Amino acid sequence: MRRMAHDPITAATVQDAPHLEPHFAFPAAEAAATEKLNARAARPNVAMIVFDDVGWGDFGCYGGGVAVGAPTPNIDRLAREGKLLTSCYSEPSCTPSRASLMTGRLPMRHGLMRPPMYGEAGGLQGEITIAQLLSDAGYVTQAVGKWHMGENRESQPQNVGFDDFYGFLSVSDMYTEWRDPYFFPEIVYSEERTRWIENQAFSKCFVHAEKGGEIEEVEEVTIPVLSLLDDMWCKYSQAFIERMAGIDQPWFLYHCTRGTHFDNYPHPDFLGKSPAKHPYKDTIVELDDIVGRLIQTLEDTGQLDDTIVFITSDNGPEMETWPDSAYSPFRSAKGSTWEGGQRVPGVVYWRGMVEPGQATDGIFSLLDWFPTLLRVAGATDATPDDRYIDGVDQTSFLLGDGAQSNRKYLYYWLGTTFSAVRCGEYKMMLASTSDDDRDIQNSGGFSGVTQKYTYSRLYNLYLDPKEQHSYMIRKIPYLDAFTAGLGQHFRSFGKYPAKSVVGGVG
Amino acid sequence: MRRMAHDPITAATVQDAPHLEPHFAFPAAEAAATEKLNARAARPNVAMIVFDDVGWGDFGCYGGGVAVGAPTPNIDRLAREGKLLTSCYSEPSCTPSRASLMTGRLPMRHGLMRPPMYGEAGGLQGEITIAQLLSDAGYVTQAVGKWHMGENRESQPQNVGFDDFYGFLSVSDMYTEWRDPYFFPEIVYSEERTRWIENQAFSKCFVHAEKGGEIEEVEEVTIPVLSLLDDMWCKYSQAFIERMAGIDQPWFLYHCTRGTHFDNYPHPDFLGKSPAKHPYKDTIVELDDIVGRLIQTLEDTGQLDDTIVFITSDNGPEMETWPDSAYSPFRSAKGSTWEGGQRVPGVVYWRGMVEPGQATDGIFSLLDWFPTLLRVAGATDATPDDRYIDGVDQTSFLLGDGAQSNRKYLYYWLGTTFSAVRCGEYKMMLASTSDDDRDIQNSGGFSGVTQKYTYSRLYNLYLDPKEQHSYMIRKIPYLDAFTAGLGQHFRSFGKYPAKSVVGGVG
Repeated sequence: MRRMAHDPITAATVQDAPHLEPHFAFPAAEAAATEKLNARAARPNVAMIVFDDVGWGDFGCYGGGVAVGAPTPNIDRLAREGKLLTSCYSEPSCTPSRASLMTGRLPMRHGLMRPPMYGEAGGLQGEITIAQLLSDAGYVTQAVGKWHMGENRESQPQNVGFDDFYGFLSVSDMYTEWRDPYFFPEIVYSEERTRWIENQAFSKCFVHAEKGGEIEEVEEVTIPVLSLLDDMWCKYSQAFIERMAGIDQPWFLYHCTRGTHFDNYPHPDFLGKSPAKHPYKDTIVELDDIVGRLIQTLEDTGQLDDTIVFITSDNGPEMETWPDSAYSPFRSAKGSTWEGGQRVPGVVYWRGMVEPGQATDGIFSLLDWFPTLLRVAGATDATPDDRYIDGVDQTSFLLGDGAQSNRKYLYYWLGTTFSAVRCGEYKMMLASTSDDDRDIQNSGGFSGVTQKYTYSRLYNLYLDPKEQHSYMIRKIPYLDAFTAGLGQHFRSFGKYPAKSVVGGVG
Repeated sequence: MRRMAHDPITAATVQDAPHLEPHFAFPAAEAAATEKLNARAARPNVAMIVFDDVGWGDFGCYGGGVAVGAPTPNIDRLAREGKLLTSCYSEPSCTPSRASLMTGRLPMRHGLMRPPMYGEAGGLQGEITIAQLLSDAGYVTQAVGKWHMGENRESQPQNVGFDDFYGFLSVSDMYTEWRDPYFFPEIVYSEERTRWIENQAFSKCFVHAEKGGEIEEVEEVTIPVLSLLDDMWCKYSQAFIERMAGIDQPWFLYHCTRGTHFDNYPHPDFLGKSPAKHPYKDTIVELDDIVGRLIQTLEDTGQLDDTIVFITSDNGPEMETWPDSAYSPFRSAKGSTWEGGQRVPGVVYWRGMVEPGQATDGIFSLLDWFPTLLRVAGATDATPDDRYIDGVDQTSFLLGDGAQSNRKYLYYWLGTTFSAVRCGEYKMMLASTSDDDRDIQNSGGFSGVTQKYTYSRLYNLYLDPKEQHSYMIRKIPYLDAFTAGLGQHFRSFGKYPAKSVVGGVG
């Protein structure tokens, strides 16, 4: 009854160079993907839509939607007509995830272990971004919306590869929470503290910048302005897409929404429009509508067949802010390395190129877009060789019908503490965030303590998606596969040492 | 910004008679449903497929499938082309659920508060089943597979309304667990205990019976036989469907699978066929295939347009038997009144009559099939008037495009303890099963203690699907809606007293 098939636990990887993450090689699938790409007249555009703090379970295609009071028909349709990734991973929080997406490198390499807040120093400077390499390769590059990879000049989007940026440099709550008497009465009703925070050296505006230039403040982000941002940003991206239709260059749009990061103040048009009628849910409905608008603009301008669309989130639900929170069926939340913290939606849509109607559990990391986009842009040769790249090229996985993931191991880091490794359906956990209090509001991933396990735990994510039953003592034969992966990973820090910019120990 | 719409919390119900559950009345939707039914030449057939211990999260259409190592393409397709119920409810365990489905009455009324085991007395006798009423109304009635509503003569399927029965009278584990040296070495390796159990007065066979007749033993259910049962039962149902194509009567097929009740020994053809390769998951893949076969037979015999298909489960995951367990994203499991215990899959498919592509969160209880099937069979007048009927007619909900549920309240009973009431997106909990131990294998719904809350808890199932944050103190205005529902419910037991057959206090 046994069948030979590719098995991620037992199969061997190849490593193309010491600074590149080992990957599975599938020669036939690779050749098919190359042929598919070569058959195209031009290189594809890329529209990457990154939501903020949206959970794995929020969209209908992941079992949410109608069931959790916020239908998502546009995203569900893209999933039905594209590839639904059920094991798509971010890092545990915002800035680490975004910088990993941008650089193809884990937080321990790019050094942004946690988000810089309220003007805190540190960012992307010194890193090489996918935007820069795509720009070098002839792409028009546009960033819209949330940045949050450093406010310092050298880390700003227009200085790390983007031709244009329209959005804010930090994170939603920083602009408004101290203005809201519900969250910060002690600032709102105190002249001294209001003046004190207004004098802090952080931007209170959303901004515009052009390649190499200075940022210009567009408007101060008060609460009423905040509620309009996603709509304004959508229009900006739509205008970009329309403009690009007349230009003979491929383009990269990095569209990062304001929603649904706390605090959500939905656009007036969407207030009370979700069945749940709560701000988080209304914002989900608005964002789904925005996805619909962006796709429609691609269709209307004749670019839908030429554009890779990817929809994801930067981490799991932020539960300390409940009820202004996402939903994940998995254990714990943003900030943790339980699945609830890092497993995020991942919908890949490319009409005519990605086979419709596929759901796949192959491991995919946001890290993987770096080499994958270089590949589809024909710019793999531009891969940096002076630093370690943790992403693997997933082109054959994404373009193949029923193809396998090219990634063997997923490494989970809890700040500077190594937490876990996943391979196949198994996840071995060496340390994690505690989440023992279930019935209190502060059960979020940022409220626990780091626990190092006396003995590693092993979870089977098929049999035990909620990580409740450690199976290690029964599955000792797998230890070898995991220790091999751990050995390779830890050794990579020997030649390519960890870096610390924000939140590290250095 | 406010819109007037039907709101289940504030809207009033009508009660057609003292013995009937109050319901929402939607005159326009009612008229449309009646017109739709009247336009048909004949009354519809009914194919009800009841899985055993399958969880809300197991199927792809509910966020499981590929994500949990067992794809379910056939069921997912029916959901896409039919109506996906995201708030479909069973009772907390097998026998109570099945008897409620059969009688339209809560366990406190039909008296089966928990499953009768190993030949224990008590069952459906004295109750009036939907099978009996459909039979009286001219339907051919066929039960296949698991029964488990009493082994005593008067409770057997052929004596409570079915023309024919082919299956077993009890529950999967009862036939085999004492034969399996993994679970019962102390029986398997002891001559005395083996003889002792063989002398117990419970059937060790699966059986066949015809209306009013005696049961005939078909075959002893050893472990190898057990692994073939779902396949054999599928073939029996297929033969029934084929036979019915030539007969000028509508029919009711009540097909109850063996899987995925513990212990799962998949059919040899499906062993290792799921990506997870574990018995539970292979059985899910087999059952999905069986759904495909039954639908194909309906199509091949020209009856697919004339048949209401419903797929559900009798309760949530049985977690005490992990890893041979289902998956639900919700809190706790089978045996409990947390959502994990009672919220089950519900897929309604009726080609040409149920609008495709709908997901709806309207509350639906398995209780509701009793009046709903009477309605579609034109036999509403046969509704018993000497007993309380807890089901409400959901015809307009099921047949309408975007229609609302006719049910206002869902009542949760934990055996003889009243546990909770749901209305709209809110669930008020007065008592529940504890589930505090998260990281041990026995975290199932049968392992806790009954906790009566000092103050009622209130959960918003949209904002908090995992029931972690009681919101009562902030939502006191809703108390009235809930206490009105509780008052009506408790008063109904005055005129129609509770009954106790198995598991009650009487």
